[in-house]
Amino acid sequence: MELKRLASLVKKGDRVALAKGITLAENDSEAGADLLGYLGVPGRAFVVGITGPPGTGKSSLVDRLIESYRTKGLKVGVIAVDPTSPITGGALLGDRIRMTSHAEDRKVFIRSMASRGWSGGLSRATTQVIRLMDAARYDIILLETVGIGQSDIEVVGVAHAVLVVLMPGLGDDIQVSKAGLMEVGDIYAVNKSDIEGADSMVVNLLSVFRGSPRSPPVLKVSALSGDGIGPLTGAIEVIRSRFSEGDTALRLKSIRGMVVETARGAALQKFADVSGASADRLAQQVRAGRITVEAAAARLAR
Amino acid sequence: MELKRLASLVKKGDRVALAKGITLAENDSEAGADLLGYLGVPGRAFVVGITGPPGTGKSSLVDRLIESYRTKGLKVGVIAVDPTSPITGGALLGDRIRMTSHAEDRKVFIRSMASRGWSGGLSRATTQVIRLMDAARYDIILLETVGIGQSDIEVVGVAHAVLVVLMPGLGDDIQVSKAGLMEVGDIYAVNKSDIEGADSMVVNLLSVFRGSPRSPPVLKVSALSGDGIGPLTGAIEVIRSRFSEGDTALRLKSIRGMVVETARGAALQKFADVSGASADRLAQQVRAGRITVEAAAARLAR
Repeated sequence: MELKRLASLVKKGDRVALAKGITLAENDSEAGADLLGYLGVPGRAFVVGITGPPGTGKSSLVDRLIESYRTKGLKVGVIAVDPTSPITGGALLGDRIRMTSHAEDRKVFIRSMASRGWSGGLSRATTQVIRLMDAARYDIILLETVGIGQSDIEVVGVAHAVLVVLMPGLGDDIQVSKAGLMEVGDIYAVNKSDIEGADSMVVNLLSVFRGSPRSPPVLKVSALSGDGIGPLTGAIEVIRSRFSEGDTALRLKSIRGMVVETARGAALQKFADVSGASADRLAQQVRAGRITVEAAAARLAR
Repeated sequence: MELKRLASLVKKGDRVALAKGITLAENDSEAGADLLGYLGVPGRAFVVGITGPPGTGKSSLVDRLIESYRTKGLKVGVIAVDPTSPITGGALLGDRIRMTSHAEDRKVFIRSMASRGWSGGLSRATTQVIRLMDAARYDIILLETVGIGQSDIEVVGVAHAVLVVLMPGLGDDIQVSKAGLMEVGDIYAVNKSDIEGADSMVVNLLSVFRGSPRSPPVLKVSALSGDGIGPLTGAIEVIRSRFSEGDTALRLKSIRGMVVETARGAALQKFADVSGASADRLAQQVRAGRITVEAAAARLAR
């Protein structure tokens, strides 16, 4: 299909066209970029990043958020960034299954994205998918990132609001801080609040922020029972109302994130193909003492 | 101090000079690169990467490995990559304290490195520190990375052997696979073997690898009691003996990792400074519909 026609269908809200556009962006960011050229200025949708260590119940919380926004009559797009293992492949999408309660809802679009081994490529494609959903007039985009690496934190740079999901028993607070999650959150949710230690975790988090210029809300929730979901969506709504009122800094933050991730992704893409023969040849020359690592790296970059 | 003189002291095994060199590499990869120019061909030391989710006891295992190599009379360098929070700062180095049993040992050099927010910069500096320790004639370099993101996996690309540390109760095996750890390990250790579920975790891991061309050893260990440490160091020794015998592929793997990480780090460094005014200006132009995200990204990259 011609890209211009595909773009026009995406903008009309055609789900098949949106799915095609996303696949295009995932497989080939250049083609994705061409498609996006027809979609106009981004920034209509409110983007919520949901991140945190594995096993904290992010997907179940996303499920609750979908419910809450659907009750308000809003169209919801969900992007789940999943560093799928090439070994076990598709079988890993286990927890996505929980979201199927919304699978029949035509106002909800859920897409899992596989990590391609190069975080730059992933951020770039994720950014493109957000823009596609934005163009398709989804009001809310929920971006769920699994894991707790640097790459997750970079991805959530495109979000207007970042929700960090934790749970009791994650290890001591040192572990949580180490993960680098203490800087990125606009809201902190301690999920699985029925587990022992939830209260002391909330207290610990609050004490960490006491010494800092930021004081993000820290909320105890249970995605399972629904406890605390009201205050959580309320905290997100506080940020969304700033967004709706046209808060310039907030709106620019996301667009700047898109620009930076796109630039960085393009720079990294140059190295995605070099793991083969040319890098081997250069390594051999380094090992033989003919060139330095730095000189080899400079050649690789060319 | 003149770089040439510093390099010569590093090569003589001067600890203060090594510490200075590492600080230089951490703060300024360009100066680090100049210093490395005087250090000669890398690749003498055997590099072991230790990675896995937070809280699995990697530091305690590293402690055991130090012990084991010191018993063999080898000089051990340890690099702990720590995405330290700017909020809580140095207080996060809690679990490093456990390593102080080796602090008085002149044949052990331990260094924590803070993540600088840009994974590329971190990998580049880490690679430089490995080369400094290598030049200072450390026989074994243990590279511990905290967390489970893509950036960790990239960092361990410079290791000759990668040890993935897991523990029972990490959540279902889906969680472990998601973390992307199933591809990078040469050896898998299920630590805290006294906790219920250790055996079934070992069985699960073995069954994951049954369907794959690889069959890395999966070992049950307890860093606390010392159980299983013998077989674990034995499994590492199998790889180290290949290294000692001059296995070309193994030796090239690490050097290639150094070249690729250095190149990638340099490419990313270009974006480390752009989060400020120019990115804001470009975001404003995107928002106003004057340029596309792609055009803005291309300008940012220039």
